[in-house]
Amino acid sequence: MEVKLFGAWSSPFVRRVEWALKIKGIKYEYIEEDLYNKSPSLLTYSPINKQVPVLLHDGKPIIESMVIIEYIDDTWKQKPLLPIDPYQRSMARFWSQYVEDKFYESVKRAFFTEGEEQKAAVESAVEALKPLEQELKGKKFFCGEEIGFVDLVAGWIAHWLEVVEEVLCIKVVDPENFPSLCAWMKNFVEVPVIKENLPARDQMPGFYRMLRQSGLASCDGK
Amino acid sequence: MEVKLFGAWSSPFVRRVEWALKIKGIKYEYIEEDLYNKSPSLLTYSPINKQVPVLLHDGKPIIESMVIIEYIDDTWKQKPLLPIDPYQRSMARFWSQYVEDKFYESVKRAFFTEGEEQKAAVESAVEALKPLEQELKGKKFFCGEEIGFVDLVAGWIAHWLEVVEEVLCIKVVDPENFPSLCAWMKNFVEVPVIKENLPARDQMPGFYRMLRQSGLASCDGK
Repeated sequence: MEVKLFGAWSSPFVRRVEWALKIKGIKYEYIEEDLYNKSPSLLTYSPINKQVPVLLHDGKPIIESMVIIEYIDDTWKQKPLLPIDPYQRSMARFWSQYVEDKFYESVKRAFFTEGEEQKAAVESAVEALKPLEQELKGKKFFCGEEIGFVDLVAGWIAHWLEVVEEVLCIKVVDPENFPSLCAWMKNFVEVPVIKENLPARDQMPGFYRMLRQSGLASCDGK
Repeated sequence: MEVKLFGAWSSPFVRRVEWALKIKGIKYEYIEEDLYNKSPSLLTYSPINKQVPVLLHDGKPIIESMVIIEYIDDTWKQKPLLPIDPYQRSMARFWSQYVEDKFYESVKRAFFTEGEEQKAAVESAVEALKPLEQELKGKKFFCGEEIGFVDLVAGWIAHWLEVVEEVLCIKVVDPENFPSLCAWMKNFVEVPVIKENLPARDQMPGFYRMLRQSGLASCDGK
């Protein structure tokens, strides 16, 4: 059973897949891609999106990080990431998609715009956090005492968002308004498997400043 | 086991849930919502999105159509909609999300814009169809001889897209360039459970013209 992961050190989408693999205890080979000069393998395995992460399992490529994590959970049954109960599963899927569609998309828009457009995107991001704050009230993690699917999908908030705030000189998460979310962020990065698998904090602002500049320059921040 | 579905006659997202319920042979009560005057029940069950469809199962609300269909498939095991094999499942999830993110989003943008912005959105929609054409080559449905998850998610293309083309006076699916997609569209609407559960074609252009006008007027087409 050969498992390979094509990734990039800075990508939260890659990192969430690595977290899932490590939680499950799956051995894999990690291949770092240069996103400005993608390898022929990456382009072969991900011909439509041409993006990392790609998980290669016995020669078969799986793409899109949430799809990959569901695949990992379907294939290796130890330490389930999604709840077993169908209703709880559906809630986990709802919240994961919510974080992607409502919060991440707003942050991305803020990251690749300026002025009024950026301001509107930041407001929309703050607005999108309110239901998450409600959902996390009184909970350690999204589905209880252990990290699971939603935590992995939302996990970038705990490490990457601060970098976005630093690069843009803005504040999205005000601890006074989002105490439960802040507690969750703290709890999340303290889990050993997460703490040991985060990109080096001091390398991130430089990289993300460059990414923002090239995104603004090409008018293609998506 | 009480199942209720809150819907709106014109919504492809509601219809795909109904198709899933009917394929599985699940009895349900259908509640038509007035989208311009949503019921207190809908707002209670879907407080974040305030949108149809909402599936209520034994008093528990499930929202977001793809999440609902996965829930239906997890809960009622007869006539599986997703493939059983984890790799095939992951492919089905990838293509479903692809249709939502790449094709539907472009069509929606075209629908609620004008001029150059609309032109760019239509081009992006046509571009997004190319991988679907490839994927459908030599196949009756996305996963073989029977309709399944991806067909239900993409199903609106077979009945709603023509209405969008009519309202906008544009052409997205040129049969010469998309022969496999056109064959799939024809096959899909000929499946009895689909054919018998489509909104009346003659009522659609009027409704969608009105929707487009109100979307353009409010500058909020999302």
